Amino acid sequence: MANGRRGASAAELEARLTSDARHVVKAVVVVHNETSTGVTSRLSELRRVMNRLRHPALLIVDAISSLGSIDYRMDEWEVDVTVCGSQKGLMVPPGLGFNAVSEKALAANRNAKLPRSYWDWQDMLENNQRGFFPYTPATNLLFGLREALKVMKEEGLENIFRRHIRHGQATRAAVRAWGLEIVCEEPLEYSHSMTAVFTPEGHDADRLRKIILQNFDMSLGAGLGKLAGRAFRVGHLGSFNDLMLAGTLSGVEMGLRLAGIPHKEGGVMAALDSLTPAAKVIEPAKVAR
Amino acid sequence: MANGRRGASAAELEARLTSDARHVVKAVVVVHNETSTGVTSRLSELRRVMNRLRHPALLIVDAISSLGSIDYRMDEWEVDVTVCGSQKGLMVPPGLGFNAVSEKALAANRNAKLPRSYWDWQDMLENNQRGFFPYTPATNLLFGLREALKVMKEEGLENIFRRHIRHGQATRAAVRAWGLEIVCEEPLEYSHSMTAVFTPEGHDADRLRKIILQNFDMSLGAGLGKLAGRAFRVGHLGSFNDLMLAGTLSGVEMGLRLAGIPHKEGGVMAALDSLTPAAKVIEPAKVAR
Amino acid sequence: MANGRRGASAAELEARLTSDARHVVKAVVVVHNETSTGVTSRLSELRRVMNRLRHPALLIVDAISSLGSIDYRMDEWEVDVTVCGSQKGLMVPPGLGFNAVSEKALAANRNAKLPRSYWDWQDMLENNQRGFFPYTPATNLLFGLREALKVMKEEGLENIFRRHIRHGQATRAAVRAWGLEIVCEEPLEYSHSMTAVFTPEGHDADRLRKIILQNFDMSLGAGLGKLAGRAFRVGHLGSFNDLMLAGTLSGVEMGLRLAGIPHKEGGVMAALDSLTPAAKVIEPAKVAR
Amino acid sequence: MANGRRGASAAELEARLTSDARHVVKAVVVVHNETSTGVTSRLSELRRVMNRLRHPALLIVDAISSLGSIDYRMDEWEVDVTVCGSQKGLMVPPGLGFNAVSEKALAANRNAKLPRSYWDWQDMLENNQRGFFPYTPATNLLFGLREALKVMKEEGLENIFRRHIRHGQATRAAVRAWGLEIVCEEPLEYSHSMTAVFTPEGHDADRLRKIILQNFDMSLGAGLGKLAGRAFRVGHLGSFNDLMLAGTLSGVEMGLRLAGIPHKEGGVMAALDSLTPAAKVIEPAKVAR
Repeated sequence: MANGRRGASAAELEARLTSDARHVVKAVVVVHNETSTGVTSRLSELRRVMNRLRHPALLIVDAISSLGSIDYRMDEWEVDVTVCGSQKGLMVPPGLGFNAVSEKALAANRNAKLPRSYWDWQDMLENNQRGFFPYTPATNLLFGLREALKVMKEEGLENIFRRHIRHGQATRAAVRAWGLEIVCEEPLEYSHSMTAVFTPEGHDADRLRKIILQNFDMSLGAGLGKLAGRAFRVGHLGSFNDLMLAGTLSGVEMGLRLAGIPHKEGGVMAALDSLTPAAKVIEPAKVAR
Repeated sequence: MANGRRGASAAELEARLTSDARHVVKAVVVVHNETSTGVTSRLSELRRVMNRLRHPALLIVDAISSLGSIDYRMDEWEVDVTVCGSQKGLMVPPGLGFNAVSEKALAANRNAKLPRSYWDWQDMLENNQRGFFPYTPATNLLFGLREALKVMKEEGLENIFRRHIRHGQATRAAVRAWGLEIVCEEPLEYSHSMTAVFTPEGHDADRLRKIILQNFDMSLGAGLGKLAGRAFRVGHLGSFNDLMLAGTLSGVEMGLRLAGIPHKEGGVMAALDSLTPAAKVIEPAKVAR
Repeated sequence: MANGRRGASAAELEARLTSDARHVVKAVVVVHNETSTGVTSRLSELRRVMNRLRHPALLIVDAISSLGSIDYRMDEWEVDVTVCGSQKGLMVPPGLGFNAVSEKALAANRNAKLPRSYWDWQDMLENNQRGFFPYTPATNLLFGLREALKVMKEEGLENIFRRHIRHGQATRAAVRAWGLEIVCEEPLEYSHSMTAVFTPEGHDADRLRKIILQNFDMSLGAGLGKLAGRAFRVGHLGSFNDLMLAGTLSGVEMGLRLAGIPHKEGGVMAALDSLTPAAKVIEPAKVAR
Repeated sequence: MANGRRGASAAELEARLTSDARHVVKAVVVVHNETSTGVTSRLSELRRVMNRLRHPALLIVDAISSLGSIDYRMDEWEVDVTVCGSQKGLMVPPGLGFNAVSEKALAANRNAKLPRSYWDWQDMLENNQRGFFPYTPATNLLFGLREALKVMKEEGLENIFRRHIRHGQATRAAVRAWGLEIVCEEPLEYSHSMTAVFTPEGHDADRLRKIILQNFDMSLGAGLGKLAGRAFRVGHLGSFNDLMLAGTLSGVEMGLRLAGIPHKEGGVMAALDSLTPAAKVIEPAKVAR
């Protein structure tokens, strides 16, 4: 239901569900954080619509590029199924997928008539109770996940979310300083984990990306679908810190120069300005080493 | 013979060797690139002095922080012993030491009367000829060295040296933009692999280093000896690229702000300016992927 | 169609397909090498039955524990779908699954009416042509696979199959010397990649497995299903050599002693006897190092 | 002072020191465990001689292949300097050397007049007190050492020593069963970490080693010095367990066959016999998992 530059629309959802008096709609499926546009949908508002209309559809959320980077509240938002992967905020190589499933979704699964195997959770649930899997699990990635979760606990979820917020702000400060346009139109929906940026009309974003790759060995995300060639994407999530962001934005700024794309200088400085006041100085004396 | 902010002095060497008519001096020992100050001695001039005076002393050079980063010509400069390690420009973990030895030094070693074992190369040379070592070698590091040399061949020594020169220039551009003082006084002796920078009078360089470490997880080198507390050091050598340098200098600039050290803003931008014109744009079309 | 101690029966298949004049049966699904019993089904005979009866069912084969260990001929046996994983003979950590699909199976897939996503190959095929995946692939495991295939080419498929045959023979020689019973009843169907062995009546196979695990840090496979507690399994596949097999069988033999399970001594020696005559001596002189 | 097949002789030491009334001898230097012969010198007896004669020489011990594998008591035996490396019982890649130094040796070092740098401990001691090294340490290996020491604490030094004793016994049981001769003549001096074995007269040990390497991918130690071509060496130390030993000895036994070296069969079985009675069965019930 996302229209490209904005998140899933609560108004649109309301219209659709209102017209569904017979409850033909079985599930509302939303991507929490849309990787292709850098837009984060406001799930709490969607849930509010569903509850107000007392619509029984399941709320199914793809949290692949938000989980572990952006605050996500499965219980509070009454999400029925969360789909996630290992390779983004969880900082593990790709290869693991996760489902978190509500009682309501489990009941629906038990009653469903569609022949299925891959989407049947029962086998997994039964085996998991005894510490097993119904098939050979990707053990190496599970060890990686265990370590990643340990690392995340050490930093603290709250701190991790704050770090991503800071990096999103600093990235947007740079984009604005360059005079470029952020794809996401709605400030309430800015993604904290990645930012998609339009190149000016007539300037090929893919050419910029290639110049940056070849000159600075940095691979930016491509614009996808309608954004192909018109936008590039800057990821700022997972195992990432202020100086990596500064290096990343420096690569973009130098790339803009080399590509001859019209822009104002100083995006990197704007990012540093954004980062530094927010940085509460940790004084040497306070540190135990 | 280095006086801190300059490299080994050819004039001073000339004076010393001229007064050594009886050839009591057996070796001239020089550090090629002084890590504590960021000063690179001009070895060719020292050798010229020795040759002009026909002084038979050995020329022994510590090339630990220059080899693989800064042009070094053992044959051309008639160096007798080069001492090097694995952990700088060779990009291998610390643990390996190397000696490159001239015929003249080998002869001196054979004739030397000082009891010694560690410095006796004969055992090593004999074993090496048969593919062995006189004792258990650090095999893992040797595998690492083999891979590192492969990586270096792929980039090309000339390109590696040029990259270090660019990074040294960009770093000094940043330092000048900040209005800070470079420790090395002699432009002909600027080190391409690291830059030492004075903090202004009354501003503790170690406090700055700690603030940067704690806020940005970046560990700068300390001022050593007379420079303790008065200077910090920025390394830019080995497995290092433009964006890592940009991130590094961003950390310094934000650290200067957080530490309240008087400076002008914009060092990072000056570095980007220095890097980008020099970067010959590699156009996408030219790249085979 | 496997009855536990034997592979899929060609006679039984013939009976089933003969009675299926209306071609209700859409696929014959067989496990090539049954991990729970150590039985390898003779696929060529099954295919022969299907061809003789001109039955149009697809032949679908699970080659998970045979591919890369036991000779497998998808084209010759006209297999329509081969299902495989990374974690057995391919020696890569678990996490990758593979499908090899015939034109006939692709056509069936295109015409199938069952709603499906996971089993729809079209998306993957289209993306693969351009060097992409329809979703984030498990990149690390793909790098591992590339290296594993390189290793396998170096050894040579023929040699790999021969090595597995030798290890199966040596393992069975040990089992017979101990006086224990091999689960697989049909010598033509002995698995080359793993051997399941009955413990004598009244002797718990799981207790034996635990004693071996705790005394020798070796984890044998458990008997599965009807074999639970009655059999243990010895894997001899993948990155495995003669001395690892000898160590494995030594662990079993010492475990039998410690568990007080009646057996004859000398299984390990029988295995060495089996291995050594087969080993063509590679004379030092012939080896280039 | 070792005569090849026996350890350092207390009698010989007594004779030498008795004739040294003027204390010209400054140090008694002994290898604790001689890797080339598999002989462990009885240090307590040597110390007893020195004490009885009140000879002030330092006792310097090379514990490279014993430390962490064989009981070693620096304090009890009043050793003045222990020299050790990382690559044997400590299970770390080669590259680290250690010195443990008594007060007496430190005093001698301070008073020594021989010009030296490598053997001067003062610089290291001063730096270590502040958590530093006088030069760049082999950090990666130090991390490895930290982990290795953790692993060793988990197993327990006593258990580690017992494991090495069991493996030495089992190896010698195999050698005797083959009818071959152990290099070490004195049972009180058998090494627990490695065993050197003579091949019969006229049978080249190096040819045997090559056949084993080429057929079984196992590299045995060569006979060194006088033992060259006459003996091979089996290491059983460090990260090593019963099944690795069984695999190792299986490789030797099959190698003896392939090389046509006269021997009796059954060495491996003798080793299993030696290992199994000693193995106190750990019953499954007792194990917490």
